[in-house]
Amino acid sequence: MLPRGRPRALGAAGLLLLLLLLLTGFFLLGGYPECERREPGGRAGVPGCARCPLTPRVPLDGQLREAAAYDGDPPAGHGGHNRSACAPQPPLPPKCELLHVAIVCAGYNSSREVVTLVKSMLFYRKNPLHLHLVTDAMARNILGTLFRTWMVPAVVVSFYDAEELKPQISWIPNKHYSGLYGLMKLVLPGILPSSLTQVIVLDTDVTFASDIAELWALFAHFSDKQVIGLVENQSDWYLGNLWKNHRPWPALGRGFNTGVILLRLDRLRQAGWEQMWKPIARRVLLTLPATSLADQDIFNAVIKEHPGLVQPLPCVWNVQLSDHTLAERCYSETADFKVIHWNSPKKLRVKNKHAEFFRNLYLTFLGYDGKLLRRELFGCPSQLPPGAEQLQGALAHLDEEDPCFEFRQQQLTVHRVHITFLPHEPPPPRPHDVTLVAQLSMDRLQMLEVLCRHWPGPMSLALYLTDAEAQQFLHFVEASPVLSARQDVAYHVVYREGPLYPVNQLRNVALAQALTPYVFLSDIDFLPAYSLYDYLRASIEQLEPGSRQKAALVVPAFETLHYRFSFPSSKAELLALLDAGLLYTFRHHEWPRGHVPTDYARWREARVPYRVQWAADYEPYVVVPRDCPRYDPRFVGFGWNKVAHIVELDAQEYELLVLPEAFTIHLPHAPSLDLSRFRASPAYRDCLQALKEEFHQDLSRHYGAAALKYLTALQQPQSPA
Amino acid sequence: MLPRGRPRALGAAGLLLLLLLLLTGFFLLGGYPECERREPGGRAGVPGCARCPLTPRVPLDGQLREAAAYDGDPPAGHGGHNRSACAPQPPLPPKCELLHVAIVCAGYNSSREVVTLVKSMLFYRKNPLHLHLVTDAMARNILGTLFRTWMVPAVVVSFYDAEELKPQISWIPNKHYSGLYGLMKLVLPGILPSSLTQVIVLDTDVTFASDIAELWALFAHFSDKQVIGLVENQSDWYLGNLWKNHRPWPALGRGFNTGVILLRLDRLRQAGWEQMWKPIARRVLLTLPATSLADQDIFNAVIKEHPGLVQPLPCVWNVQLSDHTLAERCYSETADFKVIHWNSPKKLRVKNKHAEFFRNLYLTFLGYDGKLLRRELFGCPSQLPPGAEQLQGALAHLDEEDPCFEFRQQQLTVHRVHITFLPHEPPPPRPHDVTLVAQLSMDRLQMLEVLCRHWPGPMSLALYLTDAEAQQFLHFVEASPVLSARQDVAYHVVYREGPLYPVNQLRNVALAQALTPYVFLSDIDFLPAYSLYDYLRASIEQLEPGSRQKAALVVPAFETLHYRFSFPSSKAELLALLDAGLLYTFRHHEWPRGHVPTDYARWREARVPYRVQWAADYEPYVVVPRDCPRYDPRFVGFGWNKVAHIVELDAQEYELLVLPEAFTIHLPHAPSLDLSRFRASPAYRDCLQALKEEFHQDLSRHYGAAALKYLTALQQPQSPA
Repeated sequence: MLPRGRPRALGAAGLLLLLLLLLTGFFLLGGYPECERREPGGRAGVPGCARCPLTPRVPLDGQLREAAAYDGDPPAGHGGHNRSACAPQPPLPPKCELLHVAIVCAGYNSSREVVTLVKSMLFYRKNPLHLHLVTDAMARNILGTLFRTWMVPAVVVSFYDAEELKPQISWIPNKHYSGLYGLMKLVLPGILPSSLTQVIVLDTDVTFASDIAELWALFAHFSDKQVIGLVENQSDWYLGNLWKNHRPWPALGRGFNTGVILLRLDRLRQAGWEQMWKPIARRVLLTLPATSLADQDIFNAVIKEHPGLVQPLPCVWNVQLSDHTLAERCYSETADFKVIHWNSPKKLRVKNKHAEFFRNLYLTFLGYDGKLLRRELFGCPSQLPPGAEQLQGALAHLDEEDPCFEFRQQQLTVHRVHITFLPHEPPPPRPHDVTLVAQLSMDRLQMLEVLCRHWPGPMSLALYLTDAEAQQFLHFVEASPVLSARQDVAYHVVYREGPLYPVNQLRNVALAQALTPYVFLSDIDFLPAYSLYDYLRASIEQLEPGSRQKAALVVPAFETLHYRFSFPSSKAELLALLDAGLLYTFRHHEWPRGHVPTDYARWREARVPYRVQWAADYEPYVVVPRDCPRYDPRFVGFGWNKVAHIVELDAQEYELLVLPEAFTIHLPHAPSLDLSRFRASPAYRDCLQALKEEFHQDLSRHYGAAALKYLTALQQPQSPA
Repeated sequence: MLPRGRPRALGAAGLLLLLLLLLTGFFLLGGYPECERREPGGRAGVPGCARCPLTPRVPLDGQLREAAAYDGDPPAGHGGHNRSACAPQPPLPPKCELLHVAIVCAGYNSSREVVTLVKSMLFYRKNPLHLHLVTDAMARNILGTLFRTWMVPAVVVSFYDAEELKPQISWIPNKHYSGLYGLMKLVLPGILPSSLTQVIVLDTDVTFASDIAELWALFAHFSDKQVIGLVENQSDWYLGNLWKNHRPWPALGRGFNTGVILLRLDRLRQAGWEQMWKPIARRVLLTLPATSLADQDIFNAVIKEHPGLVQPLPCVWNVQLSDHTLAERCYSETADFKVIHWNSPKKLRVKNKHAEFFRNLYLTFLGYDGKLLRRELFGCPSQLPPGAEQLQGALAHLDEEDPCFEFRQQQLTVHRVHITFLPHEPPPPRPHDVTLVAQLSMDRLQMLEVLCRHWPGPMSLALYLTDAEAQQFLHFVEASPVLSARQDVAYHVVYREGPLYPVNQLRNVALAQALTPYVFLSDIDFLPAYSLYDYLRASIEQLEPGSRQKAALVVPAFETLHYRFSFPSSKAELLALLDAGLLYTFRHHEWPRGHVPTDYARWREARVPYRVQWAADYEPYVVVPRDCPRYDPRFVGFGWNKVAHIVELDAQEYELLVLPEAFTIHLPHAPSLDLSRFRASPAYRDCLQALKEEFHQDLSRHYGAAALKYLTALQQPQSPA
């Protein structure tokens, strides 16, 4: 139906409008390099090229145009410097069209980097996206977990195993820091689904400043011979004049940069892409020892021989911030650039006239709270990620008037999880090795160094942080010689969401990532005896608990109320401090039930491990096999979170064995913000009580009559932990 | 110069293109309500109105169109659902054109709210902006400081005194929560500079999701009779059927919402706006007791009588999230909305199908790091805010190779400052009143409650926070009954920037905002004696230091190393604890020089204030007149920051008087992150030494030979504080 109003507008004004639109149209759709260099038989309907300061042409003659061409006056006859008329605006894809993006990502650092790229892309995108990620095992693991827990609507992620691609490219000698992975973009046409006709390929070090649909729309400009869209290289590298004896790979003029690629996969397959690039690469390698810039060298060599394959893209789609970049000739105002490419090894520290501006854009997304990107696209069929529907249903079923609403909401919250946020060396397989497992938030970061000194073995730590705090944490580790030296500490970032501290969810993340057969389930404000790591491994070997009944080895816990404190180097020293009143058994004053069953009197004298019985509210620190029961995630905030876990161990008939030489000491600290915020709340204790009751109902359901003892114990008078 | 490529495109393809552009043009520029309802004699050249799902018409017949009109299929003959073709794109203003925005803002909460609006506006803007802020004294003070320290390039801010406008509108009875301030939009044409021809007027509770230049561009659609652009109201309020006996003000159909207004000031002045709205308002007030929705009622009454004045705007420019809003008929996809209006008293808690989406947008800017918006507009003449040029010059002069580069950079950093971030009741003027002055970061928030219990008087606290932390802090205070009850604690947020803790800059912010004649210069980890506030006031009155030599009253400092600690209620109790070894004089173990000059032995026995002499490294906690010297901001990070201040007091001949009944006690805590990060650095101590030397050079310059004693004292062997 055409609108009623339309015919009226077609009067004398209509003719004027016609002319206006005609003129405008050239600027709207113009600005493409076709006018510079057109393939014979260019498509009908592709408009001409307007000289417009905002859509600089990409010269292919190897010389960047004089600056005047980039920021000259508006063309004559066009009233005023008008942005919208000048910006290239090919028709955007239909709003629900799925856009495909391929990224090669390997290792811990790239897996962290790519998140910032993805955030910037998601922030501006309005279309559903399908990410095709070519990853090594580490990145697969990290990004698989991240996207599963991120639950962004209208984003599908597929993984492709980089390992399988290596034979196809490992014959190419490459000096670029990206190593073999840099070359994998060459083989994408062969590995992406054959149904996929076109894809945008991105380096992990690009940042979007606009809707990726605008980039996708540029596919429409491809002639029917063109298969690859690229932005010209913005440095003099391929001109070969950067230094004496600099011998770059062959390229058309200034060459092209492959940080952002539009690939027509269908045509590449049809044209026999593999048979095209491999012979050319082999030929060049007869005269040059290796590629310097990985895939980019080879793409350029191919384009040099087959210039008809390339559709040059406006430079704003790959503003390259390498050292001595000539990028600023590309953009003349804030509105111009669409994608920033941090293609210097210096990354953010690169020098550039507008570096501050670009850095701010990058930092915007670096610290951006990723959960805010969990937003549905209106008007497209619902494309919820796996699990999201049940989650929404469960959340919708919660009663907002329930006084424990916040608890229930927090329990259901799926936190984004970025496992092994920093580079990590998995411990070599050793049958009696133990990983220290703990969780913390920002206010306990200063414990990490001292903990490293006390525990020389592997650790798996969950950190509850905002996106911005995760970056602070990164800098903290980098600035610490102690922490940077440790490759056996795995840090797993769980992103903050909701008002209550999800203590058991955090513990479960750290526990699930422990890679040794045994785990020491500790808390971040405890320092283990210096000898504990060795002693535990020896004890495990000696006891061989795996061969007998399941065992939980108890590490007796103590505390100091003194802030400055000299740590005992042996059990004898510890006992002396205890006798001197400078140490106490843990929570001796406020909550003795938590550790009384450890039987400290017996421990004083013990020379061999001894068995103790479970009792109500017992919450010792234990060493257990990695496959032990998980913590109950219903306990959020504070209270009863470890107690419930020990109940679970007892219900599953773990034997509790106290180790005679083991000890760990709690350091004093101010109450955490999370704790002080909720301890005061009168509703808090009621909700904790409700959680306990539900926990016991579930226990009875799982363990039947055997669980009765826990309920009986609970009903004795007590105060909550 | 027309591009070479152009003529080629004008072949057979040209005709096709012509047709395409013609069709496209209607969608590009269409979608305006002119087609529904056009003033007689409408402008030539205003295009017709296309039915497009993205540019819903604003019906004026009092009935929102059936939903189908808002999300129907694309019009026949138009290939696919094409966003860019549908979005209304009137030509944007030239890139360097200054856009004017007026906002009425009064009180502490609105001053906080408006920052989020400004951030969203700055995030998307690409033009220079001039903000015209109509403010009360509080907002003037807060926003004046904020914008001065924000230093955003290409933003000019002018303030207008709301107090002066009150007489013009105070005769109008108003039931709306915005009070008199809500009505002030009516008188803007009279107070904004007469040279200003048009302005965008915004409520503080709107959030931008697009470039404000697109809104500004809509002025071009005004016919020569139209003076005000408004979006239709998106609730049934003005239809008068919301409840029984609901009698709204007269309005054209559903009426208009005044959260976003385009005002043609020139025409309003010419038309005698004041003589237009006042008689109409008076007439309505004969039958209705008051306005319910402030200015909005009056604007609507005027428009009802003079419908030719209004240019209805596309609803996406004011998506109203009031309860039971019909806004979702307005937008059909993510790309649609441009401005969100939180016009329910429930604000973020409002229920709406897409509330989550809108909240995420709002939260994006709420937590957005404002310093990232300090970005220059490329391609426009440099429009640096006052002071920015010198600052850039000074920063450019720094030597990056200087080992103390970070210190020097931090000293020069201008932190954004938001004074009185929360509502605050200034203390009544009392000649001997004392404000406790301190600074803290997030890791000391839990000190606030206990500090409130120890100090019942006014406090001025500087908080060093990120934007996101400032929101956490806000929630922390709201959740605390102790803190919410205190109106005499002023919180000043200094936004984090740079790696070193700007301790003295923070102290100076808190000190500058103290409103009593005297200040107690404390630190956040100290708890004063319960009686200290009363005792200090009595001492000040008794000593009348104002009438004699300038005095600094010393409050002796102690410390406990015990984390759990029973605070002494008197000097006698304190001395008993000291004798029992449960308390120490402050830093007795590591740094006695800092407090030895207080002469604790004499203090034990003292009954009257006694004078002590300055000595090297003395850093007592003192009470001084508010106009005391400022802290030296060169001391960033940790070390010597208080010492230098005491030197300055001594140099200015303040008499140091120890108060015999005063005491304050330091609580133990883990080292702060900021501290632990830098204390370990070997370069840190060297830089501190360099800062000290520069400080002494400056002292000599200011005080001549009298300053020699400080240098001599420094040269004695010592370790740094």
